[in-house]
Parts: sequence; C-alpha cells; structure tokens
Amino acid sequence: MTNQVEEFNAYRERMNDKILGDNNKIIKRIFNLDTNAFAAGALDVKTKELLGLVASTVLRCDDCVKYHLETSYKVGLSKEEVMEALSIATLVGGTIVIPHLRRAYEYWDELETIKDKA
Amino acid sequence: MTNQVEEFNAYRERMNDKILGDNNKIIKRIFNLDTNAFAAGALDVKTKELLGLVASTVLRCDDCVKYHLETSYKVGLSKEEVMEALSIATLVGGTIVIPHLRRAYEYWDELETIKDKA
Amino acid sequence: MTNQVEEFNAYRERMNDKILGDNNKIIKRIFNLDTNAFAAGALDVKTKELLGLVASTVLRCDDCVKYHLETSYKVGLSKEEVMEALSIATLVGGTIVIPHLRRAYEYWDELETIKDKA
Amino acid sequence: MTNQVEEFNAYRERMNDKILGDNNKIIKRIFNLDTNAFAAGALDVKTKELLGLVASTVLRCDDCVKYHLETSYKVGLSKEEVMEALSIATLVGGTIVIPHLRRAYEYWDELETIKDKA
Amino acid sequence: MTNQVEEFNAYRERMNDKILGDNNKIIKRIFNLDTNAFAAGALDVKTKELLGLVASTVLRCDDCVKYHLETSYKVGLSKEEVMEALSIATLVGGTIVIPHLRRAYEYWDELETIKDKA
Amino acid sequence: MTNQVEEFNAYRERMNDKILGDNNKIIKRIFNLDTNAFAAGALDVKTKELLGLVASTVLRCDDCVKYHLETSYKVGLSKEEVMEALSIATLVGGTIVIPHLRRAYEYWDELETIKDKA
Repeated sequence: MTNQVEEFNAYRERMNDKILGDNNKIIKRIFNLDTNAFAAGALDVKTKELLGLVASTVLRCDDCVKYHLETSYKVGLSKEEVMEALSIATLVGGTIVIPHLRRAYEYWDELETIKDKA
Repeated sequence: MTNQVEEFNAYRERMNDKILGDNNKIIKRIFNLDTNAFAAGALDVKTKELLGLVASTVLRCDDCVKYHLETSYKVGLSKEEVMEALSIATLVGGTIVIPHLRRAYEYWDELETIKDKA
Repeated sequence: MTNQVEEFNAYRERMNDKILGDNNKIIKRIFNLDTNAFAAGALDVKTKELLGLVASTVLRCDDCVKYHLETSYKVGLSKEEVMEALSIATLVGGTIVIPHLRRAYEYWDELETIKDKA
Repeated sequence: MTNQVEEFNAYRERMNDKILGDNNKIIKRIFNLDTNAFAAGALDVKTKELLGLVASTVLRCDDCVKYHLETSYKVGLSKEEVMEALSIATLVGGTIVIPHLRRAYEYWDELETIKDKA
Repeated sequence: MTNQVEEFNAYRERMNDKILGDNNKIIKRIFNLDTNAFAAGALDVKTKELLGLVASTVLRCDDCVKYHLETSYKVGLSKEEVMEALSIATLVGGTIVIPHLRRAYEYWDELETIKDKA
Repeated sequence: MTNQVEEFNAYRERMNDKILGDNNKIIKRIFNLDTNAFAAGALDVKTKELLGLVASTVLRCDDCVKYHLETSYKVGLSKEEVMEALSIATLVGGTIVIPHLRRAYEYWDELETIKDKA
C-alpha cells in the first residue's frame, strides 16, 4: 500500500532524474546549490531545515513544504518545534497560509505513521 | 454521493480539529480572528465576504476561494454580485487568476446544485 | 507646497500620458478596463472601491493602494469603513501587510488634511 | 484513453464556455486581450510564447504553464529552447519554482507522446 | 545626524501609534500576536528571529526585513548567521531577492556602525 | 549631474562588492549563475533579456526591471520590442503591474537620454 509520502518521493525522484538528465547547466547548478545550502555551517542543520520550511510555507509551495517536513523529521525536529515554526509562517503570511498548514499537518501525520510501522 | 463542497468541508473540518487540538496559541488566535473579522461592523457581512473572496482570489488560494464562495452563497449574495467581484480580482491580479476563476465557477455551480436538490 | 497626494497624482498622470501616447493596444485596453471595472453594476461604486483597495493591499502595491484610497475618499467612504477593509486585508495577507498599512494610514491622513484646507 | 493534455483542454474549454456565457464584460475583454497579446507584432510569436511561459512559471501557475507549453509546442519551439526559458524562470523565481518545473517536464513529455502517436 | 535605523524606527513607531490609536480590534490583535509569536517556546528566540527574517525576505518586505535584522542584532545573532539565513532565502526565493539582500546588507552595516559609536 | 541610471548602478555595484566580499558560497554561486543564464544558448541574448525583463516585471521587482532594461538597451532591443514584452507582463500580472510599468518607462527614457548626450 502506498501513501502520500512514498508517492511524493517517487514522483519527485522520477521527474528530477528526467530534468537532470537533460543537462541544462543552470538547472543542474541550482539543484546542486539546494543540497549545499542546507548543510551545517554557521547555522546547524535543524535551524536550516526550519528556515527552508518557513520560506516554503509563506511562499505557499506544498511540494517544498513536504520536502522540508520530511527532512525536518529525519534530522530529529519535534512536532512541537515544527508547528511553532509553522505558526510564525501563518502569522507572517496570513490566513491564506492555513490551507497549506492543513496539508502540512496531514503530511507530518503520515511521516509519523510510517515510522511507527517500521 | 459526495461532491466537491462536501469533500472540501469534511477535509477542512477534520484538519482544523487536528490543528486546533494541538493548542498552539498563535494558530488558535489566528483562527479566532478569522471568525471575528468577517462579523458585521462598519461594513456589513455581504461586503466583508466579498472582500475576503477578492483577497483570496488575487492571492490565488483555491481553498480560501471555496470557503468564501460558500459563505457568500449563505449570506445571500447573488451570482452576478460574486462574478462582478471576481472580475475585479481578475483585472487587478491578471490572467494568472483565470484558472482560479474556472475552479470558482465550478464550485459555485455545485453550491447551487446542492441547494436545488435540498 | 506640494504633498504626497499631489506628488503621486502628478507623477501618475505624467507617466500614464507617456505610456498611453505610445499606442500599445494591449496596454491601452487594460487601462480602459480599469476605468470600466469600477463603475456601478451589480455592485455599487463604494463596494467596488473597497474590493480594489483590498486586492491592492494584499498584493502589497503601495501605488495601487494610494489610488484606491483617494477614490474611496472621493466616493464618500468613511475612515472606519476603509480601516475595516484594511483589517481584513491584514488578516488574510499577514503581518507583511503591516508596512503597507502604515503608508496607507499616512496617505489617508493627507487626503483628510487636503480637504480640511480646501 | 485520455491523458493530461486532453483532460486539461476539455476542462479548460468547458469552464471557459461557462464563464464567457455569463456575459461579464470585464472578463470577456480580458479573455479577448489574452488572444491579441500573443499575436505577432514587434516580437514574433515564438518569442511571445516564451514570454508567456516564463511569466506563468515564475508566478507558479501550473495551468498557465500547461497552456503556454502547448502553444509553444504548436508554434514549433524545441524542447531545448523551452527548457532554457524555464531555467531562467527557475533562477529568477528560486527553488520554489522546481515543483512546477517537474510538472512542466511531465506535460511536455505528454505533448511529444501525443504527437508521436498521431 | 539621523540614519536609516533611527528614521525607520521613528516612522514605524509614529504610524503604529496612529494605527493602534484607532482601536480596530482585528489589527490590534494581529499586532499583539506579532509580539507573542517571537517569544521563546519550543524554539529559542534566536531561531525564531531567523525564521521571521527569512519569511520577510522571501516575501520581499523591506521594512519587515529591517525590523527582524534589528531584533536579530539585539538578540546576539552574528553577521555570519544572519547572512547564512539570507543565503537560504535567496536560493528559495530566487534572484529577485537580491535587491532586498543589498538593502539588508546596508541596514546591517548601519546597525553595526551605531553600536560602534555608542 | 547624476541620474537614476548612474545612481542605481553605483549603489548596485557598491553593495554587490560588499556582498560578494563576504564569501558566502551560496550567494556567490547564485550571482555567478545569473551571469551564465543570460548568455547565448539555444535562445539568443535578446530573447533571454526579454525573458528576464518579463519575469522581473510580473514579480514586480523594480531593481530587477531596471537591470534588465539596461541590458535590453545595450543588446540593441528597440523600445517597441521592450514595450510589447511589458504589455504581456501587464496582462499576465494584472493592473498591479502598472506602477512598475510607469517606473520602467521613466527608466527607459533616462537610458535613451544618456545615449543621446554621449
């Protein structure tokens, strides 16, 4: 049985492969930067993931939110920390953020369910 | 048989319950404000619903548009009034608003169909 | 002595003349539509001005806000009505709307000052 | 067997008919302008399609991207040209554009598949 | 001699007083929430300031950026930490963020200059 | 006597030097990509400049518009071509683009004035 998390990751991986397979230099480098920017530096990995999550949320990009929720989950951020970050995003971005908040909650639940099963 | 309106409301209610159940103060208060802001004041309820609808449309938030279409419908706004508001949103927000206009029309049709059946 | 209102209107008029003088059909028609869309129809002029104001505010376009504040003022909307519309814009659009709210307040004050002097 | 391209076009046509059937003047004129703006002028049709595509992509409007991908395909733009335009959109609009890039790639593939079958 | 920081704060304070003096409940509560949301909770104050800064930057709100740069400065975030946060904002939000990055750098410099003088 | 063009370029250069002097890898690479993305490839330089201009205009980034107006001017695009591109941006992005259109016209005039003097 598949779920939202697996579906999203499978689609993401399949299309990223196609895009990167086309060898457009600009796009390849942007994908590369995306990996580098979230590595530990002056700020630690957890803080950076929360920054990516909040940026994605206020810009209302559901797929970006999903991606950062999963990485947030993997680096060990708690639900409480994630939700506090999302509350700042909702305040700064306004009530139009709420539908994305609903989908973020749903996705986080799936991330926890998957782990419980494992 | 379910339809778009019921599906949207069921999902919205289910996830709002989860979100509010988590007791994040900031989010709870934003949800509260959302109820208060559309109550009659210097402006009447119909005008306020149209303001919420147009704000949601130019910011291109489909779920917010659905919500305000239903409340607009319930407070007795006519299709002509709603469509005139949406035409201002399309002019101010540009042709990128058109796909949201299509979905708004479809949703309004469902709202009318449900009532006709009742 | 000039003020913000006069400065904005003078610049707006001067540049609009230049733009329309160039005879780009698409742009001329969009300017035309802008005049038509806010004329009385199923909705009255006051309601339409508030819709234009809220759309401009959530999209954070200061010059568009100034324009609709002045037309709102001219069609006889009260400060209280305008501020209630702006409060909906701030809730829907989030705290990033607040700096535009400050400038809107300042501009409305100038509109009132000009009239008091007249 | 239907596909994404046919589904999108059928929905788009059906809803556009409904919207235009309602005789809202502002909306009808905006739809009209949309046809005129992309006709050959100082700039040729291919360049204009790419401009429409890039504008749609940075504003992250999937349906607008689909529409301009199909017209780009029909006027004979190559995949390489389209992807180069999309790479500029991704750089200017940031990594939040990437999910839309994935869907654009998928849609372009469908456009090519349909033609291969014909 | 005044500077950017003092000018911004004086204007901000003066207009906030006017806005809050008008007793619009919705706006007063949003202002209140803004204070609460950045207080220490599951996340510490420094992390929250960075979240506010990145949200403001990707939404391209210069005044919001200025505000969070000053609070970031006051809670003891280093230039390196702030710039790393801004680099994530630039990557996620794209090159249109760069003009705001320039103004953020300039403002941070003024914040440091003021302190050096004190 | 300085003008808008010189002022913008001087500020841009001064702040870019500061930003790049700080050696944040992510930001340096994004600046680099910006140079590469507009070089001739499957699309020629003129087309790419127009794409950059339209992306900047619909995202309503005045400084980005100024930058691309100047490069458009330098690569030999005519006023008519540039204005046709801007008309597409105004249609797609809506009337909130108009204030940016005014400033773009003013800047283009300055670019032409400077050349006439040279």
